[in-house]
Amino acid sequence: LEKPFQVTFAGGSEGLWKVQEIRNVRGEGLPVVERVAVYEGEAPREAGIWNLRGIVGHARYTGRGEQDALAKVQAGLGRPEALCAVLIPIRKNRKWWDLAQDERRQIFEEKSRHIAMSLDTLPAVARRLHHSRDLGEPFDFLTWFEFAPEHSALFDDLVEKLRKTEEWDYVEREVEIRLRRA
Amino acid sequence: LEKPFQVTFAGGSEGLWKVQEIRNVRGEGLPVVERVAVYEGEAPREAGIWNLRGIVGHARYTGRGEQDALAKVQAGLGRPEALCAVLIPIRKNRKWWDLAQDERRQIFEEKSRHIAMSLDTLPAVARRLHHSRDLGEPFDFLTWFEFAPEHSALFDDLVEKLRKTEEWDYVEREVEIRLRRA
Repeated sequence: LEKPFQVTFAGGSEGLWKVQEIRNVRGEGLPVVERVAVYEGEAPREAGIWNLRGIVGHARYTGRGEQDALAKVQAGLGRPEALCAVLIPIRKNRKWWDLAQDERRQIFEEKSRHIAMSLDTLPAVARRLHHSRDLGEPFDFLTWFEFAPEHSALFDDLVEKLRKTEEWDYVEREVEIRLRRA
Repeated sequence: LEKPFQVTFAGGSEGLWKVQEIRNVRGEGLPVVERVAVYEGEAPREAGIWNLRGIVGHARYTGRGEQDALAKVQAGLGRPEALCAVLIPIRKNRKWWDLAQDERRQIFEEKSRHIAMSLDTLPAVARRLHHSRDLGEPFDFLTWFEFAPEHSALFDDLVEKLRKTEEWDYVEREVEIRLRRA
């Protein structure tokens, strides 16, 4: 990655992605909108009814071995067959952020196998993480997933497993926005 | 920390801190100014000739043991005797940011003893780190140090030692702004 860049997900009446469903999984939800537009870099002011911003930057937990394993099977965004996308904004609680780096890593991977489970779904389910916490946003992370319709079950299974992990005990707000390319 | 907050260091003609010296240590320097104003939260638009922004957030490398050790001797900012401050903006190169978390940690602490050396100067030299990289700023980090005049040598020694570490091989831009409370 040359340098970090900002992405805005604007929920409103415009954009490439039609909303199929907004599931308010935990905590305060998000208003229903028709479409989501994804802006890399500068976004129009007040682009949507809600605008979620995050930064694509360096990885915070992956070790070298994991990073190499991920790179080998990584899939990019925008594949023609990837007609399904899901945006999952998440906020973790204060207890999580008060943990030290080694404690967070321990829960994240050694106990919850977050990276290993994501690896299992690659390259079918492409994924991009956006960091929002330092921007003063309402969520800490925005994860964007893209996959072909025939891999929907694989994606559902991944999300279901992640929600049962110890890591998810620290999630205090979560919304799942299911999208289909228009 | 309840939640992350933004800090702006505005170099210009206003502010509590009088500039003693601006040393352009590596890479492009910063224009000389008379004073530096420190704004926590919202800063006035175009407050200074240069404005450096960063986020005070969670620690990225410290383990639990280190975090506890630091907390025990931590010193706050704004102590009456701390008449000296130094602001050190730093940018690391792409090679650093392409490293995995375990590789960065290895260089940062196991090889360069960054945390251990900082611990040695506490509580005399108070320190606050501001993360700038994800904000699209010209520097990746802004570190602010505060100490009483009689601890200047201790501070000088810390900075000198840090600059000789392997971690510093990855620093491509560094400025040292020496300040005195007005």
